[in-house]
Parts: sequence; C-alpha cells; structure tokens
Amino acid sequence: MKAVAYAGEGKIRLEERERPGLLESTDAVLRVTAAAVCGTDLHLIEGKMPGFEEGVILGHEFVGVVEEAGDGLRNVQAGQRYVASMQTACGGCRPCSRHDYRNCASFALFGMGYAFGGLDGGQAEYVRVPLADMTLAEVPDALADETAVLVSDILPTAYTAMVRAGVRPGDTVAVVGAGPVGQLAVMCAGLFGASQVFAVDLVAQRLKEAEALGAVPVDAGAVDPSDFVADHTGFLGADVVVEAVGNKAALDTAWSLGRTGAVLALVGLLVDEEWPISCGDNYLKALDIRPIIGDSITHRHDLLRLAESGRIDPGRVVSHVLPLADAEEAYRLFAAREATKIILKP
Amino acid sequence: MKAVAYAGEGKIRLEERERPGLLESTDAVLRVTAAAVCGTDLHLIEGKMPGFEEGVILGHEFVGVVEEAGDGLRNVQAGQRYVASMQTACGGCRPCSRHDYRNCASFALFGMGYAFGGLDGGQAEYVRVPLADMTLAEVPDALADETAVLVSDILPTAYTAMVRAGVRPGDTVAVVGAGPVGQLAVMCAGLFGASQVFAVDLVAQRLKEAEALGAVPVDAGAVDPSDFVADHTGFLGADVVVEAVGNKAALDTAWSLGRTGAVLALVGLLVDEEWPISCGDNYLKALDIRPIIGDSITHRHDLLRLAESGRIDPGRVVSHVLPLADAEEAYRLFAAREATKIILKP
Amino acid sequence: MKAVAYAGEGKIRLEERERPGLLESTDAVLRVTAAAVCGTDLHLIEGKMPGFEEGVILGHEFVGVVEEAGDGLRNVQAGQRYVASMQTACGGCRPCSRHDYRNCASFALFGMGYAFGGLDGGQAEYVRVPLADMTLAEVPDALADETAVLVSDILPTAYTAMVRAGVRPGDTVAVVGAGPVGQLAVMCAGLFGASQVFAVDLVAQRLKEAEALGAVPVDAGAVDPSDFVADHTGFLGADVVVEAVGNKAALDTAWSLGRTGAVLALVGLLVDEEWPISCGDNYLKALDIRPIIGDSITHRHDLLRLAESGRIDPGRVVSHVLPLADAEEAYRLFAAREATKIILKP
Amino acid sequence: MKAVAYAGEGKIRLEERERPGLLESTDAVLRVTAAAVCGTDLHLIEGKMPGFEEGVILGHEFVGVVEEAGDGLRNVQAGQRYVASMQTACGGCRPCSRHDYRNCASFALFGMGYAFGGLDGGQAEYVRVPLADMTLAEVPDALADETAVLVSDILPTAYTAMVRAGVRPGDTVAVVGAGPVGQLAVMCAGLFGASQVFAVDLVAQRLKEAEALGAVPVDAGAVDPSDFVADHTGFLGADVVVEAVGNKAALDTAWSLGRTGAVLALVGLLVDEEWPISCGDNYLKALDIRPIIGDSITHRHDLLRLAESGRIDPGRVVSHVLPLADAEEAYRLFAAREATKIILKP
Repeated sequence: MKAVAYAGEGKIRLEERERPGLLESTDAVLRVTAAAVCGTDLHLIEGKMPGFEEGVILGHEFVGVVEEAGDGLRNVQAGQRYVASMQTACGGCRPCSRHDYRNCASFALFGMGYAFGGLDGGQAEYVRVPLADMTLAEVPDALADETAVLVSDILPTAYTAMVRAGVRPGDTVAVVGAGPVGQLAVMCAGLFGASQVFAVDLVAQRLKEAEALGAVPVDAGAVDPSDFVADHTGFLGADVVVEAVGNKAALDTAWSLGRTGAVLALVGLLVDEEWPISCGDNYLKALDIRPIIGDSITHRHDLLRLAESGRIDPGRVVSHVLPLADAEEAYRLFAAREATKIILKP
Repeated sequence: MKAVAYAGEGKIRLEERERPGLLESTDAVLRVTAAAVCGTDLHLIEGKMPGFEEGVILGHEFVGVVEEAGDGLRNVQAGQRYVASMQTACGGCRPCSRHDYRNCASFALFGMGYAFGGLDGGQAEYVRVPLADMTLAEVPDALADETAVLVSDILPTAYTAMVRAGVRPGDTVAVVGAGPVGQLAVMCAGLFGASQVFAVDLVAQRLKEAEALGAVPVDAGAVDPSDFVADHTGFLGADVVVEAVGNKAALDTAWSLGRTGAVLALVGLLVDEEWPISCGDNYLKALDIRPIIGDSITHRHDLLRLAESGRIDPGRVVSHVLPLADAEEAYRLFAAREATKIILKP
Repeated sequence: MKAVAYAGEGKIRLEERERPGLLESTDAVLRVTAAAVCGTDLHLIEGKMPGFEEGVILGHEFVGVVEEAGDGLRNVQAGQRYVASMQTACGGCRPCSRHDYRNCASFALFGMGYAFGGLDGGQAEYVRVPLADMTLAEVPDALADETAVLVSDILPTAYTAMVRAGVRPGDTVAVVGAGPVGQLAVMCAGLFGASQVFAVDLVAQRLKEAEALGAVPVDAGAVDPSDFVADHTGFLGADVVVEAVGNKAALDTAWSLGRTGAVLALVGLLVDEEWPISCGDNYLKALDIRPIIGDSITHRHDLLRLAESGRIDPGRVVSHVLPLADAEEAYRLFAAREATKIILKP
Repeated sequence: MKAVAYAGEGKIRLEERERPGLLESTDAVLRVTAAAVCGTDLHLIEGKMPGFEEGVILGHEFVGVVEEAGDGLRNVQAGQRYVASMQTACGGCRPCSRHDYRNCASFALFGMGYAFGGLDGGQAEYVRVPLADMTLAEVPDALADETAVLVSDILPTAYTAMVRAGVRPGDTVAVVGAGPVGQLAVMCAGLFGASQVFAVDLVAQRLKEAEALGAVPVDAGAVDPSDFVADHTGFLGADVVVEAVGNKAALDTAWSLGRTGAVLALVGLLVDEEWPISCGDNYLKALDIRPIIGDSITHRHDLLRLAESGRIDPGRVVSHVLPLADAEEAYRLFAAREATKIILKP
C-alpha cells in the first residue's frame, strides 16, 4: 500500500509499505478514505521528537471503512465508516473512568513514533486501529469524510478548550489566531452560548472567515487588540481567551485580553521558546493558564451529531483536498502557509 | 396613579392609587414603562392564594426609569432604565451566597400578596422596588422595553430550566408546550448547544413559531410524540424534557419522551391536580424530576447581553402591546388564550 | 460447581451447575471469593420480574480471582483479584462517553434474568464476566473481600446519590433509613464535606450505628423528624435528602425534611406502590426528585482508594459472613431483617 | 482609638486615631475583638505597593461586635458579632451574580491603601465596614474570635484552592509549604474527600503539624518530593498540587509533583521574581496553572458552619494571641518566622 512516511529532517516521502493486518482481537483494520495533515505533523518532521524515526507513517486524523474487525469487538463492523480518535484508551481504568484518557496505560497516539506508543498513522491506504471499540466512532451518512476527519483532533481540541475554560452563555471569548483551530474555536464558542467573540489575527482572509462565523474581527496590525477588547467590554476584558498560535507574541497578546481571573486556554504549541510568566505580574490579574489536551474520545459523538444537525459546519476550514499521491506537495503547501487545512484522499 | 388591582375572584380593575415613595434607603421608585401579564397572574386572580386580597397591585414583570433612588444605593441612579427581577434578595446571606435566592430571608415577590412579602406589583404607573441594587438591572440602550421586560421572569425561567437540567452541546431537548415559555425554552436550548430540539404542541401556529426558532415541530394531534421522538433518536429518547404546560396529560407526554435517566424540567404550574408518579414505574426509567424556580437574579445580566448581541430574540414571543388603560381587555385576551404574551404600557 | 439459583416464587436453591468458560475474547472467568446478598435479590425472587425464570444464578455483587482471561483483555490478568461492577458496558459509545453507562448497548446486569441481558450472577463458585476490562477493577491488597464486594453496587449507589445531589462542603444531608445503604450514605456525605448529617430510622441499633458514623440520630418513633430537622437547621430544612427505604411513608418523611429547592435522592426501591406527588404541592417547595442509578463503573476506582486509605470503612455494614453452602439460611436471615448485609463465601 | 498604621518602609506603629463613624446608610462600625496579621501585611509594609502610604491602618482579617449599624442594613444589627470578608462587593452586578466578586465595581480591600479602595483596616479598636450586609457574616456563638477571624481571608483562600482545582473524593493532593495556608489546605482537602494528601516542607515542626491533620509528611530536605510522590501514586503524580510558599524553588517542586493534566493552584504570592514557565515543557505535562483569589464572600457561611460543626478546626494554625498594644512585637515575630499565625486583641 501507499503511505506517507517520515524521511529525515524536514521531509516526508510516499512509500510502498506492507498492508497492516489484525494483531489483537480488539483491533480493526481501516481502509482510509480521508486523512488530514496537522500542524503537529510539521513539528514532528522537524526531527526533534525523541523516538520519531525515519519510516514512521504519519497521520493522527483519519476516516475510513473497516476492512477487518477483530472478533473481540462489539461496536465496530466491517463495511461501516468510522473516524478514529487521535489516541487509543482502554475505557476501564481509573484515569479513563475520570475522562482523563491521556493517563490511560493503553494510551498511544497514531503516527507519532515510539515515544507515543509506536502506532503507524493514517496517511496511508490502510491503518491498524487498536482498541477499536474505544478508538473508532461511526460516522453519520450525512457527513462527508472531509468534515468527519476533523473529529480526530482539531475540532475536539477547540471544543475541549471551551469545556476546560468553562465557557457559558453570555461570556465574552477572545480567540488569538484565526487559523483552522482558531476558527473552530469561534464555532465552538457559539455552541456554549458566548455573546461576544473576538478573533485576533493579522491576515485579512482569516479575519474575514472568522467574521463570517460570527466573530468580531480584530486586525492586530491595525489596532491594539488589548485596547479594542477593553473598549468593547466596558474595560473589563474577555472572560475566556484562547491562544491558537503558539508563539510568545501571541501569548503576550492573549494574556493582555483577559479580565482579572479570566481563563487563558492554550491550544497552540509553543516549541523552542520559553514564555516567562511573572507570577508576580499574574498575581493580581490571576489568569488561569490551561494548556488544552483535546479530548476526542469524550466529545467525538457529540461533535458528529452537532455537525450532522448543521449546528456547526467544521468542514469550512478545509482549504485543500488532494490525492494521497500528492502528499509531498500537500506538506509543502501547508508548511508555506498556503493552505489552512489539507485533506489527503488515498 | 393608575394601577391594576385584584378585584375579587376572576377580576382585575384599573384603580387610582397613591404613588409610592421611598421607605428605606435601599429602595428605588420606578416610573414603569412596560409591564407584562403572566400566566401566574391568571392563577392569582382565581382567588385561591392565601393572603392575595382585593386591592393588591399585580405585576411581577416590569421595566422602568428610576424616579427616586435611596441614598444607600450604589448601582442604581435616577433617570436610568432598569428591569426588575420578580423577587428581591439581600445578596449576602448563606442562601444568596449559594445562588439560592428563594431561601433568602429578604425574599419577596412583586404583586403576589402577603404570603410572598406583600409588595405591590408593577402593572402601575409607579412601583417601589426594595433592595434595588440587587433587584434592578440596567437595560442596554439597544433593547426595547418589550424585550427587556421578559428578563423579570419568563426568560430566566426557561434559561434556568436549561441550567438545572444541565443541557450541553449535542443534547436532544424536547419541549412540551410551545407557548411563550416553551418558545423561550427552544431559544435557550440553542444557547446551550442542543443539537436537536423537539417542540410538542397541538396548535399549528405555535408549532410554526417553534419551527422558525429551529425546533422540529411535533403535532401531538397528528403523531404520537413518544414514537416520534424515539424514531428520531435511535430509540433512545431525549436527554432533557421541558414540561411547559402544567397539566397531567402534558406531564404524561413529557415523561414518555425522556431516555432512561433523562431530566424532566417542570416549568408549567400544575394546580388543582395531582400527578401520581409511580416510583416503581420510574425506578427503571429513573427520570430526574426537577421543578424549576426561575433565577432572574443570577441570570438577568447574561440574558440582557445575549439579547443585546442578537444571540436570542426573546421579544418575538410578545403578541400584544396595549396601554395600561386597557388592562381589563388584556387580561380577557390572555385568559381566553387569544394572546401569547401581553405587555402593558402605562 | 455450586451456585445459588432462583427456585420459584420466594425460593432459592443451591444447585450443582456447569462451570462457565470464556465465550468471547474480552471475557474473563472469575473464581468467586465473596458474593453479597442484596435487597434487590429479595425483590427478584418474589418472581414478578419478567424474564426472571427458574434457574437464573443470582448475585450482582462479587469479588474473585481471575481463573481465565480472554486474549482480547489488557487490564485483566489471571491470578489477580478483582471486583465486578453490577453491570457491563462498552466504554466507547456515546452514552458511555458521557458516563451514562445504563444506556450503553452492551449494558447487562449480572444475575437478573433475560430482561437485563441474561447474565448469570456471582453467587456461585465461578462466574463469566463479559467485557472484563470495563467490568472488573483490581482490588488493592489491603482490602478484604468483604469490603471490596460493596463496590459492585451498594457503595457506588450511596456515593452516586451524593454526586447526583451535588452535595458540597457545608451542606446539611438527611438520610431516611439507616440500613446498609443508608449507613453508606452517611459515610459518603462525609466525603463530600457535609457539615451536618441526620439519620432517621425507627430501629435503635441502626440509629446507634449511624451515630457512630457521625450522624445525628433521629428516632422517628420518638420525635417528628420534620420538626427535628427544622429545629436544627434554623427552620430551613436539609439541603439534600436521601430516601433509602423504599416505601410511601418514608418518601413522605423524606419530602418533609428538605428545604425549598432541596434535592431528594431516591435510592430505595418502591415497588407495588404509587407515590402520588402532587405537582401543585411540590411547586412551591420545588424538591428535585432524583432516582439514583448507582454508577459503579465511574466511581469504583475512587471508592477502592478511599476504602484503602481508610477515609471510609464500608465493611462495617457487613453483619454476616456465611459459606455459600448456607445460602438458603442467608436469604432467610436477610428476608427476616435479622441481618444488615450478608456475604457468601464459596 | 488605637490602630496599627504603616510607618514607612518595614515599619508599623501603634497610633492614636479618631474613631470612625458611619458614612453611608449601608455602613456598619465594628468594635474589633480580634484581628489577624497576614503574610500580605509584611509584603505591604515593604513599601512597594503604589498608593500604600504612611498612616494607612492595616488589617484585612477581623472579627468584632457591631457598634453602629446604618439604617439601610437588613442583615446586620448592633450588638451582634460578625467576621468581615477581606473585600467589599455589591452583590447585584454581573460579576457578583457570577461569584466573580473581584471584578465588582464596589470592590475594595481593607487596609491595603488607595490602589485597593482606600479603606482603613481592622488592626484597630474600631473599623468602618461598607456594604455591611454583604461584607459581614454573623459568627456562631460556639466559635472563638481566634477561629472566626480566619474566615476573612486565609481559610477561604485554602478552600477556594480546592474549589478552583476541582478536588473530588479519591483525589491525591500535594501541598507545597506547610505554613498556616498550607495547613488549612490540608484540612480543606479532607473536606473534598481527598484520599491521599502530601505535605511538603523543610521544617520538622510544620511537617509534624501537617501529619497530625492527616497528611503524609514529605521532608524536602531528606527525600526528593517528586520521587516520593511518584512512588506513592503508582508513578502517576498528584491530581492537584497547591503551592503555598511563593518562591521559585517551591514552584519548581510543585510543578514536578503533578500528573499529566494536573491542576497547580497558586496560593503563595511570588513577588520580585519571575517563574519562567516554558510552555514547550508544559505542553506535554499540561498543568493547569491557576492563581487563587480567595473567595470569602461565597464561602464564609459554609466555612463558619464547618468550623462550628467540628468538621474542621482552623484555629489550630494560630500560634500567638497578643494584645493590640503589642502589635510591633507581633510584626517582628511574624517577620522572623517565629510565629505561624498571630491574632491581635484590642
């Protein structure tokens, strides 16, 4: 089969690989119909992640049709279409029983190398899915692959940010960074009843898209976002701020937008930089700083329903759908920021 | 001044009464600009409420401009426009500190007679408002009186139903009764992210209005609501059911719509009837039965914001706006169910 | 093997049965070391439950050592000691992802007949446990079987009552019925920080035991419980009431003890009786009436920890430990209310 | 009257001052019977707080008997004993209705100078208390002044840490710093059902006191706290960590004790130091970093009940009770860390 494999620092390669089969009775093998490229994939192929070695098949966001289902499965049947969570979990241990799936002993991530359990990813024609009753969720007929695939990671991440930040009706939410996750955060803020959503970015197109989703666009190149949000909130500031960029400047902006005691939800990934929080500075302002671990296992069913019902339309963040054969071009486009979200179709 | 007073069983009368003044330093006197007629008012004038005697001025929903503000007030200023909560509270006692304002020792309801604190109501040209810093909330300029007045009681009641029922994104909510409170419940279900809302009624016009608000209309005269909801939820039933009628038949219907373990939120007022719940019958189905006490004091600020931002448009449940002088006609229309919600303007 | 089987109305019989084996790769077979007799077992053998036929092996509370583990299991190993939840669940469906395990398509109860999935129970030398990764939880070495077995059902039921009632530090909790579940409710109220716990019963020994657990004993034969609770709460009433008897008189008492807006958690099983709630009567008092479905799957790990740490000592509700061979005598003692909680040891 | 006033960098002085009277109808004047010295007072007299000028009367923790009550008050009567919250609030604005009292427009702190509202504090014979219905809570007869005074600030701070961190039964809580706030945190962890509490410190006496409260003492001079907690939690780490010291080393230790996704609650005050959180480092570990603003107004009533009922005994953190006349000696002892908590009695 064809698969997108890590090919050394900064590179991926479409390789011919052996098609996976069942290893355990709770496995399923999926014939992939759509796989997304994620910002995390770009970080991974920079080659700094320990245990992420040449040959790892990439992809932690994918949808497909079950080709083979282990005989220990109850929820998963051959021939049906499913979306995978980016992670596996057992469902029955203490962390799982508290919805803390990240601390499950059976936790593994697709396509991230040995440090995260050594599972091959889904940017391939086929993928083996362990613990498939937990890992897979059936996709309603009405949803396109390109929409459903967002439930693996980035849509639950945006949604988990709202849950963890405790957004409730009437809240003011400010989103810093109107890329794909930022736009999904704007959508999700609406699901939790935000009365006012600000989207801060520098790129006109992104601001326009955020505005179409109901946000007040804030062009950080034209106005001071902190002054702007203060002016529009009676000088209080936002109840919740979502940082969806992942660099120091964006963190500083995000910090400035919150009211005293606001929640600052971090969905961007800051690497190779420190963000020195002066606890003294933050003592009076007292922002809760909450890094977000997207919880697909808990939220995917509800997100699929919400997309099916039309309450949200996450698919609009997809800018490119390309054949798997064009994976190298896809990574190039994405790295060059010429694409918002790219879906590969094997 | 003119005021709507209880005039004996089944009757109200527009009377000439003395204009109220300040009694305590935390009082305000409001020049009423809009007051609503509520279903509760009809129950009251049936004359069965102990302590509800002839001469009580009716009205627990009202908006107005402060004419006089006591010198102990901080939040309330003469000349500004405010909406009153239907109840007073102190803010500082143990119940208040837990948002359990109904158990506050300073709890009183406007326009309900001595059993509820003996306060005159707001269907009048002027009304005295005790503990005005707590009881009044400033109305944003953008909101019409006819919209703001709904924040005294029926909008917070519908909203509190969602809060107490724990509605969250992806939930299925069924609303039994598409009158004014039922329609507000449909709106509020959207604020909490419901993916599917059913509105059950017998009246075509109400069903049409609920549909315009995003609900799936269920004509109880044409289909069996229980079968219909089962068919549309994979035979599970609704996560939350709101009963907004207040009779035994509606309660039975509502009970039938919930999934095992659903919440049944009661916003209708059942009087003169028992609803015998067989705890044996309910043991397996296990519906949580939660009577709703609308909490205006907690939620009014957020509701005013949500209305101001356009996230909800509660004013559309208002069917009639009449001069205060036509109060008798207003009560007649309302009792005859020829009106959904009536606003009186002094 | 020996097993306790239903033998027609009012009777059980120790029978010789075939030892179960693995049917699915996610099954385990447990060599039972302790099984409890539950009030529900008495209801079952009255013979009115549809599908509960002669020959069903009883017992939904049991601990044992895994004899055989299916090859699809991750968490469960042969030779280790586990306690079973009274129910099975898949862990991955929408209801499970919301901790609503009762609506899981793989839901089944042990020892309750075909209406509940047709699983044989654990009052036997061996029992087959489906979906064992979800259904079983490892028992810490420090815990005796007689303590751990309470985690299958009655301890999570008492605990779930607190969770669903939202007990928080400072609350006043009243427990009606100081039998085993009532006493566990008193213990659990302490875990959630209740400042005042009342235990209402008629039996001096039970009241004494509840007092030893920290409750204020209320002898319903000597004082009016409603007056007593009012006198000790500044005439407010209890924030939360737990009904742990299951008859009409107890429900009426329980209703009377709550403050306006209190939660009434129903853990007793009312059968063959209606409890006619007048919604009119309850409109002003507005008690939330919440039947409790004990959630062992969510809470067992935390309960095992709490017992291991000594924070709670649930084992003290066990009054009798008998050999499995004495099962008939055990049922006789329990039915005659000569025992609080009986453990059978195969 | 006598009062403790700021007397320039590092100094306080007992001064003769004019006795305060009522300024507003919602004021009360309290005859102080006990006032505590807080770590914050030491920070204040370092003289770096803008607007904290010579002559400010110190003290934001105090109990007393009402000498005069404004005529706008409902809850407060002359001759009764009350404890003050460290802050004032109105109760009725949007922030107050969300229990976000710190953002109330009427927010002011006692004894902290003009930047915080310019109210004189309670380390004096008399103190004026604005908005007394909100600010004061009646003290049960059974509670000594020395216990009740802790409800102004440090006990609610420890308690709020548990609330904000979402501690629930079965949790493992690690407290770094076993001074007065740390010890109160150990007590409060018990109220929320923690099954395991670690107290980390270097001082043998403090560790002994924490152990007496039920914590596992961890002597950071003898063992590596991170290894110790890992060893005792199956290598998972603590669910919640409370940092109650306020320096960089303690923050680093605290960070190391949490499991992936743990909450790190900051109750210590870090001044003159940065704590550079590398968001990259924290991305995988993903600790929620939550500075705690103690919420006396919400929690004081429950805390007074819990102390009255004996569920907690906060008074044991008081090491010294001195006459107000010895205030200078009290500050010296406290600054020299020769005292845990000092109460001044006018």
